[in-house]
Amino acid sequence: MDNFTFHNPVKLIFGRGKLEALTEEIPKYGNKVLLLYGGGSIKCNGIYDRIIEKLNEINSEVFEFTGIEANPKLSTVRQAIDVCKREQIELLLAVGGGSVIDAAKAIAAGANTETDIWDIITKKEKVTEALPIGTVVTIASAGSEMNASSVITNWETKEKKGWASPYTYPKFSVLDPVLTYSVPHEQTVFGIVDVMAHVLENYFHHTSNTPVQDGLCEAILREMIEAGPRLLENPKSYELRESVMLNAVLARNGMLNMGYKGDWATHEIEHAISAVHDIPHAGGIAILFPNWMRHVVDKNNTGRFKQLAVRVFDIDPEGKSDREVSLEGIAQLQEFWKGLGAPVSLKEYEIDESTLDEIADKTVSKSPEFGRFKRLTRHDSMNILRESLQEVGV
Amino acid sequence: MDNFTFHNPVKLIFGRGKLEALTEEIPKYGNKVLLLYGGGSIKCNGIYDRIIEKLNEINSEVFEFTGIEANPKLSTVRQAIDVCKREQIELLLAVGGGSVIDAAKAIAAGANTETDIWDIITKKEKVTEALPIGTVVTIASAGSEMNASSVITNWETKEKKGWASPYTYPKFSVLDPVLTYSVPHEQTVFGIVDVMAHVLENYFHHTSNTPVQDGLCEAILREMIEAGPRLLENPKSYELRESVMLNAVLARNGMLNMGYKGDWATHEIEHAISAVHDIPHAGGIAILFPNWMRHVVDKNNTGRFKQLAVRVFDIDPEGKSDREVSLEGIAQLQEFWKGLGAPVSLKEYEIDESTLDEIADKTVSKSPEFGRFKRLTRHDSMNILRESLQEVGV
Repeated sequence: MDNFTFHNPVKLIFGRGKLEALTEEIPKYGNKVLLLYGGGSIKCNGIYDRIIEKLNEINSEVFEFTGIEANPKLSTVRQAIDVCKREQIELLLAVGGGSVIDAAKAIAAGANTETDIWDIITKKEKVTEALPIGTVVTIASAGSEMNASSVITNWETKEKKGWASPYTYPKFSVLDPVLTYSVPHEQTVFGIVDVMAHVLENYFHHTSNTPVQDGLCEAILREMIEAGPRLLENPKSYELRESVMLNAVLARNGMLNMGYKGDWATHEIEHAISAVHDIPHAGGIAILFPNWMRHVVDKNNTGRFKQLAVRVFDIDPEGKSDREVSLEGIAQLQEFWKGLGAPVSLKEYEIDESTLDEIADKTVSKSPEFGRFKRLTRHDSMNILRESLQEVGV
Repeated sequence: MDNFTFHNPVKLIFGRGKLEALTEEIPKYGNKVLLLYGGGSIKCNGIYDRIIEKLNEINSEVFEFTGIEANPKLSTVRQAIDVCKREQIELLLAVGGGSVIDAAKAIAAGANTETDIWDIITKKEKVTEALPIGTVVTIASAGSEMNASSVITNWETKEKKGWASPYTYPKFSVLDPVLTYSVPHEQTVFGIVDVMAHVLENYFHHTSNTPVQDGLCEAILREMIEAGPRLLENPKSYELRESVMLNAVLARNGMLNMGYKGDWATHEIEHAISAVHDIPHAGGIAILFPNWMRHVVDKNNTGRFKQLAVRVFDIDPEGKSDREVSLEGIAQLQEFWKGLGAPVSLKEYEIDESTLDEIADKTVSKSPEFGRFKRLTRHDSMNILRESLQEVGV
């Protein structure tokens, strides 16, 4: 293992009926609450009304900011920061999935400073404080509810940037699996892909002595493979929603990668794609990940690929080369995601050769190489992107 | 899963050379530091000098309280509380293993109040604040460095009590595997047993839908079985000390039992024993656990026992009854601990029939039944204690 610091102060409040906890948690931070949410589905499924009811019980002064988009935009974040300043907001209550919570982190960091939030996101300026954030999770996917990370897209410059600060951990996050019953089929598929992809990004590393972290990664992947298809058949199963909701948190709260850092090249490429084309993050990831795997697997690193194939996909290695076992595992992952209904080619998002150069440029805009398990160049990005235009290997 | 709240704010600082972090962390909490430690081994192995050097670098005003015993005593805690009050201590720096850190939690909770600490420990009075605690772990075992729990023994009343409060989480814990190189052989054995026993106490529950938590438990147990004997041969192996140190934390930081509660009857019985006989905690646990397992396993609960046997001890269930598989797993656990050199009978601590009644009484002093996986009565305690007087089943 490598040296590490783990410090995750988020209070996770998990289970049926836990919306109740809002009345206890919110008053700790203030009375003026800015409710942040996305497209308004929470008004259709009753979650909005239930939250307003809780806020009224404790006499919160409630402001609302709605319309936070799937890849949250800098312009949206700036508008919400203006609201915070104008109304002297004391707590942000983010209701949604990764996008709303990611936006909340940027809004929180920008609310108490004259520094422009893009300068903070691009690390030109430092965060020194942030508004407290509470979250109510309605889409289990990103795991943003138990970490400090955020991804924001600047549409003026076509940049999608990940950033984090010690001040942007939510103070509390309410996770009631019931609140995800009405997540649409496609979003549910993306949630399953996203959780698995977060685990897989971590799983590919060269650090020694991580058997317990490996075991946790493999247990999450196996459970997602077991529960995922059943959930799509039974979208109102408490246990299956519960599994995805817990695993989304565990995949991104820092616990499974204690002592090592994962690869994350695939996320880098996906961020470049969705800075140019506004596609669903997990859709891009489902397409890219198997292609990244086939691109980087070689005789010096088959160990991790083989371990994944054997332990997660139950592939019998008997009589096969390590490379064969590895490729079987990759094919099974792709087949599994395809079977859920996830996309397999960028063409499904009407992306063709014409923008690949622009996307590849973006993957190396920060530095000429990226990815930790295997260092990639612009040339690698182009290859992976080209492979992602066709349905390969299935 | 059951509803749960997870909120663990400890900053874990893990790895080689991390003692360095003291100079950054301590000044956040104050200048007057009370250094707490046990029998003085840290003066022999150089850890004391290195810590003092760090404290001098930041001009801390250092006070010392030494002689905290293996089962920390209420009388010792009270003496240290007096020092805190007299010297207006601002931070406790606990250097040691579970005993010193457990004592620190009681000292911290008693330092800023006129309430007697025993009333807090016995839950007659509530904690409302506590001194901040930092820890430097020199014995990987209890995992006290990343939780709020503490066990204190009152020798006047012969009571050993576990308690916890939201205020007694350490602010930071420094875990450098190198600092455990000089842990004596017997203590290393006890550390391995203790970590495994904490996982096992959690593992036995009836809550459904915990596959990922199970996977984490099993990964820790397998790694302890793999690493434990090698560590005893190579006490200065960084990787093996690292494994035990991380697993000690994971076994007790609340992450592996998200959504369910473990049994903990064996700890209840061990606490009763060591309230009467001052024996090493993990020694008692090594003797009791297999006897608890054999006592409670029955046709309605073999599932967990069988899962343990198959997944952790690689027992082939083919052609065997569930009970046979379960008993084989129990025998292998006992054999493994015995092979490390852990005790198998209470007689090794010169305990005989004469005090069993007194011990059994203590197991039911709070309520007539205890243990969550299987409710036990005083009669059960007596049976398990009697079995623990002989070497059974090996």
